[in-house]
Amino acid sequence: RSGEMAKLAQLIDNEVFRAYATYTTIVLLKMMLMSLITAYFRITRKAFVNPEDTASFGKGESAKKYLRTDPDVERVRRGHLNDLENIVPFLGIGLVYALSGPELSTALLHFRIFAGARIVHTFAYLIPLPQPSRGLSWAVAYIVTISMAYKVLKTAFYL
Amino acid sequence: RSGEMAKLAQLIDNEVFRAYATYTTIVLLKMMLMSLITAYFRITRKAFVNPEDTASFGKGESAKKYLRTDPDVERVRRGHLNDLENIVPFLGIGLVYALSGPELSTALLHFRIFAGARIVHTFAYLIPLPQPSRGLSWAVAYIVTISMAYKVLKTAFYL
Amino acid sequence: RSGEMAKLAQLIDNEVFRAYATYTTIVLLKMMLMSLITAYFRITRKAFVNPEDTASFGKGESAKKYLRTDPDVERVRRGHLNDLENIVPFLGIGLVYALSGPELSTALLHFRIFAGARIVHTFAYLIPLPQPSRGLSWAVAYIVTISMAYKVLKTAFYL
Repeated sequence: RSGEMAKLAQLIDNEVFRAYATYTTIVLLKMMLMSLITAYFRITRKAFVNPEDTASFGKGESAKKYLRTDPDVERVRRGHLNDLENIVPFLGIGLVYALSGPELSTALLHFRIFAGARIVHTFAYLIPLPQPSRGLSWAVAYIVTISMAYKVLKTAFYL
Repeated sequence: RSGEMAKLAQLIDNEVFRAYATYTTIVLLKMMLMSLITAYFRITRKAFVNPEDTASFGKGESAKKYLRTDPDVERVRRGHLNDLENIVPFLGIGLVYALSGPELSTALLHFRIFAGARIVHTFAYLIPLPQPSRGLSWAVAYIVTISMAYKVLKTAFYL
Repeated sequence: RSGEMAKLAQLIDNEVFRAYATYTTIVLLKMMLMSLITAYFRITRKAFVNPEDTASFGKGESAKKYLRTDPDVERVRRGHLNDLENIVPFLGIGLVYALSGPELSTALLHFRIFAGARIVHTFAYLIPLPQPSRGLSWAVAYIVTISMAYKVLKTAFYL
């Protein structure tokens, strides 16, 4: 059994895989932060969606008025959904890319630009910055993912 | 080629990886169940969103009245989205955590608490239980994911 | 270090894993396409959600009228969310399934039917085709995922 553990240790010792592990963890933590920001705006703006969440504000009409949408809450939620739509492809394509034997420097370039672009995208969405900031940062991360997908299909194609 | 299969078999024979495979499958099946519950409420509450889904109820106005939102349907959909927001990070961070050589007992503790908390979260959301049931179960699974992320970054950090 | 790379290369040389890499990349690219189709409809239908996206149409009321929902945009967004709900389970369960040592022909059958069903589902949602086209294609991909989950739990179960 120690032989197996050694083999796994070798997988995580591989530098490309370590880079994938690091950047995946970073972008997923960033995405998880969106939940906290949503909660922060829901509480400060007093804008909830579930009746049980407003029970502490009293009963009946006095609590019901906090069941409403708020533009700031909705903006964070859109940013969160956009993260899901773009980070899920990175998760899957990035993993098989990392295992398809890319050059370390090329892999790092892909991971760094993707993570940087998604962080810029979050600031562009939440502040918000004037367009095309959000559009461009979204497109950069999108193209990086396409580039990794191309490498995977070129290396591993088996239909 | 049998040598490669043996190597893969060793990966799945590794107990931490088997535990990851088991718990990932369980939480993903639980998330998939949300689709069936949504469909169940859409049909029993007669609350649809796509015009083509109400065609069997007749034509024109008689079918159009079933294109509406229903509080129970919306509640399940929010639970489903919350699953996506929290199980996707577990999927990615949990995988690289499982490959970062944690103690089996520590890994099992993380996986079991995460899966348990997400199952409690589902019940708390759908029944619904009074707060802070849903909030606490959400927070427990969130903190477990952060703890795995910390271990990954400590072990595999390669920026 | 070259020994490690060789081991990784063997993982990607394994035919089942190559098939997983190929089909995962295909369904994720298909999902990413939904973002472009959403953008296409938002621009052609002039239906936006963020005020900063309509700034190029002028200031005040002349731009504000483009902050609206459009049935075609909403339809693509529902298809995109349905992809997330169903492709995320494939991503996680498919990975551990591919590593659980299935027969190549059985694995290919699962991957091909899943990818085919999700592509049919997209056409059924976007055209839209009359029901039960969308429902059936959804169910086929759902059942394939359950079948892979069953194999994983039978092979790797470690609770």
